[in-house]
Amino acid sequence: MKIYFCGTDFKPEPWLAALRTVLPQADIQAWLPGAPPGDYAVVWAPPQQFLDEQPQLKALFNLGAGVDALTQLRFSSATKLVRLDDAGMSVQMTEYVLHALIRHFREFDGYDADVAQGKWSFRKPRRREDYPVGIMGLGVLGQRVARAVQALEFPVLGWSRSAKDVPGVRCYAGPEQFDEFLAETRVLVCLLPLTAETRGIMNRRTLSLLRPGAYVINVARGSHLVEEDLIPLLDSGQLDGAALDVFQQEPLPAGHPFWRHPKITITPHTAARTLRDESVAQIASKIARLERGETIAGIVDPTKGY
Amino acid sequence: MKIYFCGTDFKPEPWLAALRTVLPQADIQAWLPGAPPGDYAVVWAPPQQFLDEQPQLKALFNLGAGVDALTQLRFSSATKLVRLDDAGMSVQMTEYVLHALIRHFREFDGYDADVAQGKWSFRKPRRREDYPVGIMGLGVLGQRVARAVQALEFPVLGWSRSAKDVPGVRCYAGPEQFDEFLAETRVLVCLLPLTAETRGIMNRRTLSLLRPGAYVINVARGSHLVEEDLIPLLDSGQLDGAALDVFQQEPLPAGHPFWRHPKITITPHTAARTLRDESVAQIASKIARLERGETIAGIVDPTKGY
Repeated sequence: MKIYFCGTDFKPEPWLAALRTVLPQADIQAWLPGAPPGDYAVVWAPPQQFLDEQPQLKALFNLGAGVDALTQLRFSSATKLVRLDDAGMSVQMTEYVLHALIRHFREFDGYDADVAQGKWSFRKPRRREDYPVGIMGLGVLGQRVARAVQALEFPVLGWSRSAKDVPGVRCYAGPEQFDEFLAETRVLVCLLPLTAETRGIMNRRTLSLLRPGAYVINVARGSHLVEEDLIPLLDSGQLDGAALDVFQQEPLPAGHPFWRHPKITITPHTAARTLRDESVAQIASKIARLERGETIAGIVDPTKGY
Repeated sequence: MKIYFCGTDFKPEPWLAALRTVLPQADIQAWLPGAPPGDYAVVWAPPQQFLDEQPQLKALFNLGAGVDALTQLRFSSATKLVRLDDAGMSVQMTEYVLHALIRHFREFDGYDADVAQGKWSFRKPRRREDYPVGIMGLGVLGQRVARAVQALEFPVLGWSRSAKDVPGVRCYAGPEQFDEFLAETRVLVCLLPLTAETRGIMNRRTLSLLRPGAYVINVARGSHLVEEDLIPLLDSGQLDGAALDVFQQEPLPAGHPFWRHPKITITPHTAARTLRDESVAQIASKIARLERGETIAGIVDPTKGY
């Protein structure tokens, strides 16, 4: 069995070594143009040429939960597109969202600023009933985040493309229930896949529908947010702040206003990193299932884009 | 029924109003020296004179989870000492500990510093297996914190005075298992009651037993920590940092080295605030149970001190 690694932005050597450890019977190589036909591939943002040269691939394993970099490409109908399901990402996402939520709700930045001035301050406790958390995207990641936020006794709402039923979460679905979902939400968490329908979903109109003094946490893709709409909403007070891990252009360009806005906390696309050991273990187990003719989780539906 | 409010550091008016709402049949007054005998009292750090004048009180309700300010006083054996059990405190404690843990583990302060310099940085992800979280105190608060930390897939250890069995938590008990607990712990969380046995429990000897690069989170009482022992351990690198909400003297005195140490994050005793509505509802329900001759939770054992 021949497996190619083709991962823009990933150093190949440690991935090749890790894949060889979990798949000792396979021939695992970094792909080079003109290489002979392979059976499987492990990819991140591969070039179109790779897909054009390897139409016989049985499956492409994407090194991330979001497959938007792949679905923009043309690939053979013989090839299954497979995303990582979890592989250590949902716990990281949950951590990131909890941290951003608690940091904002409990005003820890304010306390830090007081302490820096030598001030022992008193701030009136906020009521969590006033901070309903609305999660866009109720897949593996969204449902896990929802459970963690529920455990902290915040009201939790969820919105997804198709109707879902998640215990303890007030669920909304589809475009017709979107505005109602937004109107009830104070802390908006974006965990959506990036598709034609969700691109720019956070914009002046939709963010204006949130409860006044809302907070935005984007851990999905930069293009979910219309970046130029955010700052006027922060400056007017409609939004109280934002925690952004992803941006339309990454690295975020020097001089971009998000670097220094006092109400924006940014991180360098670090909310949920692809963990090598977890990922290769999952890929090995999925290849074994496919070779035995069994079904696997995480196959992308190209018509939906996730 | 006559109920006194005697709460140093608490403004009496809103508490009197809230108590009168939930106990409309009772006569509720702020205590003044020489007042006639009462049935119950709601207190925070009352003067000894109050207890001496009111030996007939059936129960004293302490406005907090920690009763160390009360157990130092002499009180009548006719009077039950009752602490709040939870009343909105455990969720706040959990939030505070999760925030401090994630902030440290995920290096969010480091990312913030990078961002302040316009730097899009890469930091190698840490492995949560390397950060076992050891919780001292496995009461209502400790067990809830343990569950939340488990949900983030950290190894969780617990230590308490008497042996406990908490699902998923490696439990240690008593002085004879304390050093073993410390040796396995990387993030130490203090949620103990303050008693003669636990005063100064975090000191040069015990903190030196933690895994190298340990982190200390104290949300219990300032006197659990020998404050002068902390900084040398931080400066030597044995400890990587500390998040402290409580101090031997509060407000923390101006010029105290904790205000500005780069590895110490302090907050002004805000981890779990006494919430008025939750507290008075709980007190009203406990008084009703006592009046019917029923048992209640939260009665302090004066020989144990909690």
